Order: sequence, then C-alpha cells, then structure tokens
Amino acid sequence: MLGLVLTPNSLTVQRDLPAPEPLPGEVVLDIKLAGVCETDLQLARGYMGFEGIPGHEFVGVPQSGRLQGRRVAPDINCCLTEDCEYCPENRHHCPNRTVIGILGRNGGFAEQVAVPEENLYEIPDSIPDEQAVFIEPLAAAFEILEQIPIPSETPVTVLGDGRLGYLCAQVLAAAGGIVTVVGKHASKLERFRKRGLNTIVLDELVPERKAEIVVDCTGSESGLELALKLVRPRGTIVMKTTIAGRYDLDMAQIVIDELRLIGSRCGPFPRAIEALANREIEVESLITSRFPLEQADRALQTAAEKGQHKVLIIMDSNTESRITR
Amino acid sequence: MLGLVLTPNSLTVQRDLPAPEPLPGEVVLDIKLAGVCETDLQLARGYMGFEGIPGHEFVGVPQSGRLQGRRVAPDINCCLTEDCEYCPENRHHCPNRTVIGILGRNGGFAEQVAVPEENLYEIPDSIPDEQAVFIEPLAAAFEILEQIPIPSETPVTVLGDGRLGYLCAQVLAAAGGIVTVVGKHASKLERFRKRGLNTIVLDELVPERKAEIVVDCTGSESGLELALKLVRPRGTIVMKTTIAGRYDLDMAQIVIDELRLIGSRCGPFPRAIEALANREIEVESLITSRFPLEQADRALQTAAEKGQHKVLIIMDSNTESRITR
Repeated sequence: MLGLVLTPNSLTVQRDLPAPEPLPGEVVLDIKLAGVCETDLQLARGYMGFEGIPGHEFVGVPQSGRLQGRRVAPDINCCLTEDCEYCPENRHHCPNRTVIGILGRNGGFAEQVAVPEENLYEIPDSIPDEQAVFIEPLAAAFEILEQIPIPSETPVTVLGDGRLGYLCAQVLAAAGGIVTVVGKHASKLERFRKRGLNTIVLDELVPERKAEIVVDCTGSESGLELALKLVRPRGTIVMKTTIAGRYDLDMAQIVIDELRLIGSRCGPFPRAIEALANREIEVESLITSRFPLEQADRALQTAAEKGQHKVLIIMDSNTESRITR
Repeated sequence: MLGLVLTPNSLTVQRDLPAPEPLPGEVVLDIKLAGVCETDLQLARGYMGFEGIPGHEFVGVPQSGRLQGRRVAPDINCCLTEDCEYCPENRHHCPNRTVIGILGRNGGFAEQVAVPEENLYEIPDSIPDEQAVFIEPLAAAFEILEQIPIPSETPVTVLGDGRLGYLCAQVLAAAGGIVTVVGKHASKLERFRKRGLNTIVLDELVPERKAEIVVDCTGSESGLELALKLVRPRGTIVMKTTIAGRYDLDMAQIVIDELRLIGSRCGPFPRAIEALANREIEVESLITSRFPLEQADRALQTAAEKGQHKVLIIMDSNTESRITR
C-alpha cells in the first residue's frame, strides 16, 4: 500500500508498504482523509524518536467488525494487554500503551491502518469528513474542561493563534470563559474575532499578571515564559504544548505565586463528536491546503509554512477533485 | 541596635544600626530568638536581590499595642496600603506587599523589628520559644493541605531529609497520607523513621512512576527532576523549593502524563500554632546549633554546613547559657 514513512533521516512516500496485519482485537481501516498536527511536525524533528507511518487525526472505514462500513475516528491511545491493570479507565496514561502514529504503532498517513476495535468512535452522518478529521484535536481541547473548572465569566487567556488555539479558545468560550487570544499574526487572529473572541497581537501586548487561567497553545518554548507573565498569583497555566527539547526557566515564580501548571493532552472523543454534530465549534475555516496521499511529504512541509493552518491528506479518490495542487 | 546586615557583597553583624521606626499600623517587637531558613541562605547567594536585615522565622514581644508584652510570631507577608484591593484575603500574594526579611522590609536577625500589628499571632504559653520559632515554616508545610486534598492512605513521597522535609512529612502523615521520605543521608533519615515514616536513601532508590503526590523539599534544582521520575501519570508535584537560578528541564512529560505542578509557599499560622500546642508535630529535634546574635553571620555559615538542620539565633540573654559556642 501507499503511505508516508518517517525514519531518523527521511520522510518519504513509499508505494510498496505491506498491508497492515491486524492483531487480535484489531480491525483494519480504509483511511479516507487525515489531518497534519503540530505533533507530526515535532515527530519529523525527532520528538519521541518515532519511526514508521505517522498520522493520528483521521477518518477511516473498518473493513470488518461491529462498525464495518461506517465512518469512524479512533482514540489514539491503544492497549492490547490482557487484563491490563490500568485500562480501560487510565488508557490515556497506561504504561503499556502504544499511541497511533506517535509511539510504537503506525498511524494514518497511509491507505490503511490496523487499530484496536475498542478505540473506534462512530461518526454521525451529520458531520462531514472534513469536520470529522478534527475530532481528535477537538477532544484534546475538551480535555481542559475535564481537568479544571471554568466558572462562568472566568477570564481565560489562550496563547497561540494556530489550530489548537482556535479549538481551545472556542471550547473555553462555550464553557463560559471570557476568552482573550494572544497571537503573533493579526491575519490569523481575524478568524478568532469572527467567533466573537477578544484578540491581542503579541507585539501590542502589555503583560499584566491578571489572568485566572492561561492556556499555552503556542507550540513553542516561548509560550510558557509568556504564560508566567500573564497569570495571576494562584492562577493556572494549562500546558498544551509539547516540544522536542528542553526548557530553560526561572521557576521561583511558580512557588512564590503558588501557581498551578497542568499538562493537558488527549481528551474525550464523545464530547468532541457531540460538539461537531451540534455545530458548537467551527473547524472548517482552519483548512488551508489539501494534498493527495502521494504528496504526503509535501503536506507536512506545507503545514510547517507560515500562514498554514490545517493541512489535510486525502486518500479517498472521490474527494480528489477538491485537492489543491 | 545589633543586627545582621546583608548587602550585595557582605553579610556582617553591625552594632550601631538605627532602632526601627514603626509606620502607622506597625509595632516594634523585641526579638527573643530566630531560626535560619534555607531561603536566608539563598538570599545570601543573591536570591530576590534582598538588601537589609534578613530573618523571617522568629519569636518577638511587642513593645506596644493589643499584644504588648505577649509572645508573638508574625505572618511574613505585609501590606500597609490603605483599602488595598487584594488584602486581607490575598495578602500572601498582594502585589503591594513587602515580606519580612525577604522583600523590601527588614527581618528578625536583630534586636528589634517593626512589623504591622495585624500580622501578629499570639503564641500560647504551652509552646516553648524553641518550638514557637518553627511556626512560620510549619505554617508553610500546612499550606499543602490548603491547596490539595490528601485522601486517607494516599501515597505521598517527600523529597528532602532537611528541615522543611521533616515538617511537611509529619503534616502529610498526620493528614492521612502514607508518606515515604527520600533523602541523601541515612543519618538524617533516622529522625523520620522515629516518627514512623517510611524512608529511602537516594542512592538505593529505584525510580518508579507510582506516587500520587510528590513534595519537593530538596532546596535543589535536582528535586524537580527527581519528582518527575517518581510521580504517576495525572499525579501532583508540590514545589516547595525556591532556588536562585534557572531550571533546565524536559517538560514534555508534564503534558504527556497530564501532571499537575503546584507551587506552595506561606501558610496558615493558626493551624501551625494549634499543631504545636497539641503536640501533633515534633520540631525540637531539628535544632542542631544555637548562636548569639553577635555571631549571626556564623549562624548562617553553619546552617549551610552538612549535618546541620535548624540553626537558631538567640537574642534573649536569659537563654544564653544554652548557646553552643
């Protein structure tokens, strides 16, 4: 089959990959389309030491099993350990887990992928493919609400005008927060303003330690440093950014101001699916480019370019007419 | 008056210091004795850029006011701003605050100090001076219970076999936690074992990510790095260590494991006083040396030496007979 393969030295589309062989409990999905995530770009830079087929945001159709022929999105945290002491309650943090396209398991930048059947969530017909591909990152945005209360009218600052910032800002506003988005690009912030969110261009920001909650969606080391300049004493910083590298930080402020830092990762798929079905969250405006699977390497290069938001990789030939070339 | 003075280049006992002049709302205390804290040692290394008389753990007797002639311990966070929008509820984090012996205000390594009268807590007669000097650091230990719940039988790991580690370990055990203390020194850990606490010498530790809560009382940059190796996914790290310097950290684990880091600083004086009055917490075994105020510089040097725990500075000549020379 066709797929994108990451090795320590290369990122190449290969034509003659073996078809996935499902283990007990797994089914093979025909993949319709996939989204490129910031984490994929970090993987290509060496994060997690991943080798294989990346891709963890995708829509597929199972070839067999209870959801055969239906559209599905898989939770990316997988565990096939029998009678695992951590799962299913703690699968997102199970030490025995593999993670689709990130850790020890191939992902969705290919024609097919094998995944545990129990990881599959059916996508209602009311959600088009190009919205459904956002289920995984939208679930990650909803994870914040699982971790901390957002009392009505809480001032929340979201750092980052990219894809994840857009999803998190909408989720936090829908939960009742008074959201302000800080971003580098006036042009990217326009999308946020259209959704009724306050925005500030980074260059014009006068840092004050006033925010009750700051969510770092910058994808950059600088995000946490900025968050520390904006959060009020006893406030909370939600860390959504994973970087391949180390931080150099003065952490005394965390102690003196009694701050809370909370790492936040994967979230609840059912809530994300519900939000898309109910049109609570807008996602399609994020799509800036589409590439066929044959050009998946170009898709990742493009996703790293300025001005790009969500880049899609399309496997399904029926949608090929809409592909940007 | 006599006092210890810190400048950017020196730490010297001076004889001819001017007596403190109380501002409106302040009273002058005659200081009986003071304790040397890890923070004092950090101040002497440049932390906070403090200049003046350090010392924030002490017992004094007001020369005037409603507690005239009684023994008192002051909360170290002071604010004299009229109609302050933050105080008294948030005085510990008031941006207008001064901090006794740490920030913008002289401390207690002197014969006298002026402090706001509203900061004073009376010490019951049942608490001897040499226990009362622990009220401030013990309140800081109790602050953890104000910040996070410790459900009964929660596994808690305390890092650091020093003064603060000993106080925090006892507070957490009294709250119902199953406490394990990790320290560098088998000899120091003996004190913990006498209180029924589990101990592990650092050299013999096999790190496993199992602890629900890890409290870093190491006073060292290495504490947080070790805490990250011991805390379970979705667990909590309480940061009690403030260092004069920067951390170099891989923070991806915080996000992937959805950890919580909580800075923890000053705490409730009434709870600390109650605990000492009820003999819930043992403190006197921590005292390893006593110096007269004339030798306060030596007291700080000694406190930095291996094998030392709490070093006291004694102003009251009645206790001088007990001073180690």
